[in-house]
Amino acid sequence: MTETTVSDVTAYLTRNVEDALPHGALERKLTLDRPLRVKLGIDPTAPDIHLGHTVVLRKLREFQDLGHTVVLIIGDYTARVGDPSGRSALRPQLDPAEIDAHAKTYMDQAFKVLDRDRTEVRHNGEWLDMQMEDLFRLARIPTVAQLLERDDFAKRYAAGEPISILELLYPLMQGYDSVAVRSDVELGGTDQKFNLLLARDIQQAYGIEPQVAMTLEILPGTDGERKMSKSYGNYVGVDEPAEEIFGKVMRVPDDAMPVYYRLLMDEDFDPSRAPVESKRRLARTLAARYHGDDAGAAAEEHFDRLHVQRAMPDEIEEAPLPAGLDQVHLPALLAGAFGISRSEARRLLTGGGVRIDGEPFSDGLDLPADRLDGSVVQLGKRRFKRFRRAADNG
Amino acid sequence: MTETTVSDVTAYLTRNVEDALPHGALERKLTLDRPLRVKLGIDPTAPDIHLGHTVVLRKLREFQDLGHTVVLIIGDYTARVGDPSGRSALRPQLDPAEIDAHAKTYMDQAFKVLDRDRTEVRHNGEWLDMQMEDLFRLARIPTVAQLLERDDFAKRYAAGEPISILELLYPLMQGYDSVAVRSDVELGGTDQKFNLLLARDIQQAYGIEPQVAMTLEILPGTDGERKMSKSYGNYVGVDEPAEEIFGKVMRVPDDAMPVYYRLLMDEDFDPSRAPVESKRRLARTLAARYHGDDAGAAAEEHFDRLHVQRAMPDEIEEAPLPAGLDQVHLPALLAGAFGISRSEARRLLTGGGVRIDGEPFSDGLDLPADRLDGSVVQLGKRRFKRFRRAADNG
Repeated sequence: MTETTVSDVTAYLTRNVEDALPHGALERKLTLDRPLRVKLGIDPTAPDIHLGHTVVLRKLREFQDLGHTVVLIIGDYTARVGDPSGRSALRPQLDPAEIDAHAKTYMDQAFKVLDRDRTEVRHNGEWLDMQMEDLFRLARIPTVAQLLERDDFAKRYAAGEPISILELLYPLMQGYDSVAVRSDVELGGTDQKFNLLLARDIQQAYGIEPQVAMTLEILPGTDGERKMSKSYGNYVGVDEPAEEIFGKVMRVPDDAMPVYYRLLMDEDFDPSRAPVESKRRLARTLAARYHGDDAGAAAEEHFDRLHVQRAMPDEIEEAPLPAGLDQVHLPALLAGAFGISRSEARRLLTGGGVRIDGEPFSDGLDLPADRLDGSVVQLGKRRFKRFRRAADNG
Repeated sequence: MTETTVSDVTAYLTRNVEDALPHGALERKLTLDRPLRVKLGIDPTAPDIHLGHTVVLRKLREFQDLGHTVVLIIGDYTARVGDPSGRSALRPQLDPAEIDAHAKTYMDQAFKVLDRDRTEVRHNGEWLDMQMEDLFRLARIPTVAQLLERDDFAKRYAAGEPISILELLYPLMQGYDSVAVRSDVELGGTDQKFNLLLARDIQQAYGIEPQVAMTLEILPGTDGERKMSKSYGNYVGVDEPAEEIFGKVMRVPDDAMPVYYRLLMDEDFDPSRAPVESKRRLARTLAARYHGDDAGAAAEEHFDRLHVQRAMPDEIEEAPLPAGLDQVHLPALLAGAFGISRSEARRLLTGGGVRIDGEPFSDGLDLPADRLDGSVVQLGKRRFKRFRRAADNG
């Protein structure tokens, strides 16, 4: 074995990251003769961890395996302030009990990836419930122009959409978290790049050696298009049953396999392999990762029972769900999708000739669109369609 | 005598104001069957009251004489935050003892104009030392775009000059003062129009009937050009000796007489009167207003002694002070202004042949430019010049 140098370690840690800024800073930090403090901020308004979150968590785990300390910051205080994602103008405020419950759920799931012994969990309410004068000190640091350069603010400002002063305070407080925990590195998705860099300015203003801002590519959801997110309904939660994980991953479009491999697998994507094989390998690995090897194998068997034994093909033609409806009338949907009459569709529905995701369906003539989205509907033995909601641009 | 109607009162109170917004609101407020609460915010970083401040104070007094209550708010808390004028990016913070001393000075001088019995004095530290959550509530109200419309912010933002987040918080806090004291009317100079209107939005967000925003024209200084301000050295303080008030007013340029009359006198400016007579009348009135009739008369006599008995003409030719110098070398200045040689100037200076503002001068060959600005220099018996610093555009 050859000796591992700091630049080997740097190359390993940055191999699949988008940025580690400023250049050279991570390598310098790694030469310090102590465990680095690697920060991740947690938004307790969204407690369930999905595969998208695990991209960052797995990177944290890599730091832990090298002897560094992860500092998870539960944003209990900032949860009361505003929406960090910039998607909605202002989220409803959460009460403390909800925040605690969410944080507990999050931590239970996060420790499926992280090493508990090398994780420090903090709540930013510890330090953000500051005196007004301390907030004023903080508010002297960045300029309005600097904050309006943040991508989402810039777009909303240019579009004439309202941005409250409160929203400008959020990245300041997030930056102050980095002062409070003296982070050496902070991780986030590419959409956090601005905040992670701003935190450097804030640390510097408080006389603290600034952190490395490490951003990771954002995992697309099971639609292969938009960012994986609970609110888009395109997520795979780490706490879902193994069969759900396996099944959902099998529905990810083929062309998303390279990015899924890059961000979630320890092996490279092999383009010479059949897409369905790559996907099976990914699905098996992920189901086993969160439920153990036995559950992973059982999930694959379950999938095969549905698809192979019922002659359900691995690749199923898709059909759109009507846009804008919460409730779908099945006779109309099936008539359109399978080219049959509504009365025939109704007869099949009431006579036990329809399966949804392999299970016989006899629950009436209407279903919520959410329930149908991504599901396979089978008429008789040989006809299959997977319904999907048309992606809106939300 | 005819009966005074609400619309007569409205017309009287608004006769010399720039705006009373929204239109019709003051008249509506005046129909309420109670004393109105008329707010003025005081910046305790500038304790001395000059004639410019009295424009607003006199308007407050008019409200008091009609039975309304004036609420003076000492901005002890906001004095720690930032510069309200927008002139400098961030002022040094004042300590509490300084703020108290300044506030006391201000009040002593303000009661030369205001009726003490109808004045409520408050400190915004009473309510602005709020919980962070209360600040967040406040910070949800205005948008960044709304604040960046404020004239000084808009200019600085367009010019790429830094505006800190802290500065955006200032008008919010000033607006919250209007919530705390439940003001019906707020007064300010035209430069306060934005803040006074923003306070309406903030009151409304807190469920309070919003105030009338009343703005008054800004009095030019003794240079007749820039806003009267201590920092421009063009002010007449109400606490200055009567002779100083009289003498400074006599030096105000003729063409500023209409605005001085409009804002400071109870009578209209009479354009048929000789300018020097209008000015004497103004000077006498103002000296008497702040020091009593006897002192006013004495100030006029003092002025006459200097000008008439020493044959100093009322109108004296002006000569410029060299720009950009703090210290002026008198032999060079006098040689240039009076068309004599430097050696003759030096001989007059050392031989008692020079008077400055009527007093024999024997203090050497150099003088600060500030001391000379606006002063009359007399050579021998008959030659006079008034020196003035060229106005820069600061």
